[in-house]
Amino acid sequence: MALRLAAIIEALGGELQGDPECSIARLAPLQTASADALSFLSHPKYRKELAASRAACVIVSPAMREEAAQRGAFIVTPDPYLYFARLTQLWKRAHARPALEHVHPSAVIDPQAHIDPTARIGALCVVERGARIGADTVLKSRVTVSEDCTIGARCLLHPGVVIGADGFGLAPHEGTWVKIEQLGAVRIGDDVEIGANTCIDRGALEDTVIEDGVKLDNLIQIGHNVHVGKHTAMAGCVGVAGSAVIGAHCTVGGGAIVLGHLKLVDHVHISAATVVTRSILKPGQYTGMFPIDDNASWEKNAATLKQLHSLRERLKTLEKEGVPKKTP
Amino acid sequence: MALRLAAIIEALGGELQGDPECSIARLAPLQTASADALSFLSHPKYRKELAASRAACVIVSPAMREEAAQRGAFIVTPDPYLYFARLTQLWKRAHARPALEHVHPSAVIDPQAHIDPTARIGALCVVERGARIGADTVLKSRVTVSEDCTIGARCLLHPGVVIGADGFGLAPHEGTWVKIEQLGAVRIGDDVEIGANTCIDRGALEDTVIEDGVKLDNLIQIGHNVHVGKHTAMAGCVGVAGSAVIGAHCTVGGGAIVLGHLKLVDHVHISAATVVTRSILKPGQYTGMFPIDDNASWEKNAATLKQLHSLRERLKTLEKEGVPKKTP
Amino acid sequence: MALRLAAIIEALGGELQGDPECSIARLAPLQTASADALSFLSHPKYRKELAASRAACVIVSPAMREEAAQRGAFIVTPDPYLYFARLTQLWKRAHARPALEHVHPSAVIDPQAHIDPTARIGALCVVERGARIGADTVLKSRVTVSEDCTIGARCLLHPGVVIGADGFGLAPHEGTWVKIEQLGAVRIGDDVEIGANTCIDRGALEDTVIEDGVKLDNLIQIGHNVHVGKHTAMAGCVGVAGSAVIGAHCTVGGGAIVLGHLKLVDHVHISAATVVTRSILKPGQYTGMFPIDDNASWEKNAATLKQLHSLRERLKTLEKEGVPKKTP
Repeated sequence: MALRLAAIIEALGGELQGDPECSIARLAPLQTASADALSFLSHPKYRKELAASRAACVIVSPAMREEAAQRGAFIVTPDPYLYFARLTQLWKRAHARPALEHVHPSAVIDPQAHIDPTARIGALCVVERGARIGADTVLKSRVTVSEDCTIGARCLLHPGVVIGADGFGLAPHEGTWVKIEQLGAVRIGDDVEIGANTCIDRGALEDTVIEDGVKLDNLIQIGHNVHVGKHTAMAGCVGVAGSAVIGAHCTVGGGAIVLGHLKLVDHVHISAATVVTRSILKPGQYTGMFPIDDNASWEKNAATLKQLHSLRERLKTLEKEGVPKKTP
Repeated sequence: MALRLAAIIEALGGELQGDPECSIARLAPLQTASADALSFLSHPKYRKELAASRAACVIVSPAMREEAAQRGAFIVTPDPYLYFARLTQLWKRAHARPALEHVHPSAVIDPQAHIDPTARIGALCVVERGARIGADTVLKSRVTVSEDCTIGARCLLHPGVVIGADGFGLAPHEGTWVKIEQLGAVRIGDDVEIGANTCIDRGALEDTVIEDGVKLDNLIQIGHNVHVGKHTAMAGCVGVAGSAVIGAHCTVGGGAIVLGHLKLVDHVHISAATVVTRSILKPGQYTGMFPIDDNASWEKNAATLKQLHSLRERLKTLEKEGVPKKTP
Repeated sequence: MALRLAAIIEALGGELQGDPECSIARLAPLQTASADALSFLSHPKYRKELAASRAACVIVSPAMREEAAQRGAFIVTPDPYLYFARLTQLWKRAHARPALEHVHPSAVIDPQAHIDPTARIGALCVVERGARIGADTVLKSRVTVSEDCTIGARCLLHPGVVIGADGFGLAPHEGTWVKIEQLGAVRIGDDVEIGANTCIDRGALEDTVIEDGVKLDNLIQIGHNVHVGKHTAMAGCVGVAGSAVIGAHCTVGGGAIVLGHLKLVDHVHISAATVVTRSILKPGQYTGMFPIDDNASWEKNAATLKQLHSLRERLKTLEKEGVPKKTP
């Protein structure tokens, strides 16, 4: 099923240089695009690939207009990557298969759950008593939404997601652990996407809150009473411990860990695999990760690292007391 | 549904100063408590919040009696946090909705599984042949317990848990991997809680063992033939590799990794995101994590770290051989 | 159900020294083997355990023949660990319970999915439209295979696996995120094993590819458009970000993170918990992990680490300019 360039321009705007009747059979990266594909140039550093691409048409920024013209048809738009994102959405709609049922018959829905009639609940999902699922929200297969948790509108929850399992609340008592029942729930805003097998725990007394527009990748753990601000995005395998408050417009790289009860202000960016051990009150990029090296070099440096404090003391001593000059 | 203070004292003990007929409508933290809430002060460092709290009543330790009296009603108990934990349990029982069925009709239970009549198996669980589920144990939705695995009494398994998938056993052979069938199972003691999407693999020849009272958070991976001692607790995203033996009363922070075939004695505490690369034979707190910094500082320090061993050599040389005194 | 040594030798080869009629009731490690068990010595460093073992028979390499002979019956084979792996497979087949149904009645299979008649689909799996499952492939319980994804022959997918959830594709736009629809799929080769709750995302435009013989442990995240080469193995909790290309015959240790758009050539070995931040173009072992220490030592060294760059500058100054000799 192909789309004409004219239809694309009509839906998404942009300035077309080329034949509007040209038929696009697929979207593809520059390097592997065939002659019936539409591609895009997101950054000038890939310009070499532009020149070599066999694509029928390429989406470019105004700065690349001349280079694109030497190759063939193109669409000019201020932000080609954004245009491409919207194009994938247009493409998906144009190729849409008949919509899923409202609620798959294999899903287990409590009669006291509230599911908007425009929401879609996939196969083998579980929606418990008091849970609310908003308009146009989609739960793919095998998602659990526990008691009293609420999901806003236009959310997308991927397979295996668990919303509202108990937070990890324990009081120590004579060498054993006494459970703190988790009496709060989870509140998720609108336009939130949650990746496969990601877990968001219910709060102890109050709710865990995920604000509008948050995007979570796969296999993320969000502890109880965490608050994630609007439009913050986290990559896979991130862990956020209980009661952390993360601002809006933050990003957290894959495998990073945020300890509990910390506060990150808006516009904080945490690099992959970094451990956040203190609150961060100033926007910016923060990192803490041991640099990779060949194993032999790492072993030597790691061994020395365990003496680093005493090396500093030795350096201080040298600076203060001097050293004997070697006699020749 | 409210609870009178008198009913709480009757169930949990403690000394009440205030009106026993006072009706409690909710449990809440000091800061957000409304005038119908019961709250608690777990640590003197939060005493400012005590003074400002609107709570109907506050649970405090004997040392805080005077300060609490200046504010209003209070309950005195030696360990307010423990009292609060038990209060959440009382609250949950008091507000209990009718119990789940014994086995949800959507669960898939092998006829040769053994499920105690007091256990409850949630929606879309799978319990395979030869598996045993003990008294009063609860499997929430979408839990898998594989062949021949046993779960003790009063356990709680959250959604997505997988007990008894194959351990990762492979023998190398001419550049390929030959599977080692995992012929052991998983044995889980009493009073164990296992968080959402956590996995505990079956043993290769013998069983993987989780002893009584162990508490595991979400998204934890426990490899084959691991042995976890009584009342050990692990936070989210921890990975424990095969055949590790972890003692009793240990704690493992979020995102930590324990390598295979290691032994940790009782009362070892591993900090978050730490990699345990050797056995630990002495109780205590152990840590290994690159400190977070602003990205520019991190980059400079990380680059230098890759020369750390040679810096040490240069320092040694200075100490031994001295340095030329700069001529003025 | 026991196996005679003669039957084992007939099936797997090897030279038996001992009574072929001896009946083996179980497989066990040397240390815990009872007198009816068959065990193996994978490495000469365990020779002490060989001497002390009560096993009926032990699998050894030719070099261990004499020591084994002093103890009792043994089987000689060039690679005892490989022999043991095959023995577990023989054992499993010999003790096989009747095969699972082809497709468990609780599984949700789209009528337009293509499932080889020899494949087996476990309880509560979801196989979506256009998905293909190859010959003799087994999906254990609660596996999702999304639209148009293909799984080769003789694969084994453990409970909770999610194949083909959307990759994490977002274009930033005025402080919000615009979704990039993921139009590719996942292609998995033959003889691939995928651990419990592991996720492999579908590609953005092209497919995510897992080649033949790859072995993935539990709770692994594979991002969109990743390519994993033949016979590469990854331990639990690994995260591979989008568009990474990992060669053949690589190993990735538990909890390691591979950042996006990187290339690892064949035969690269990444240590546990290491963060791969650059392409690796030379085979070998690579590591980056902060060494564990008692917490007090770690604190001192970590604090000094944040001054490492300035320490280096001070050392340079000393080397260049000298230091005042302390007056006596």
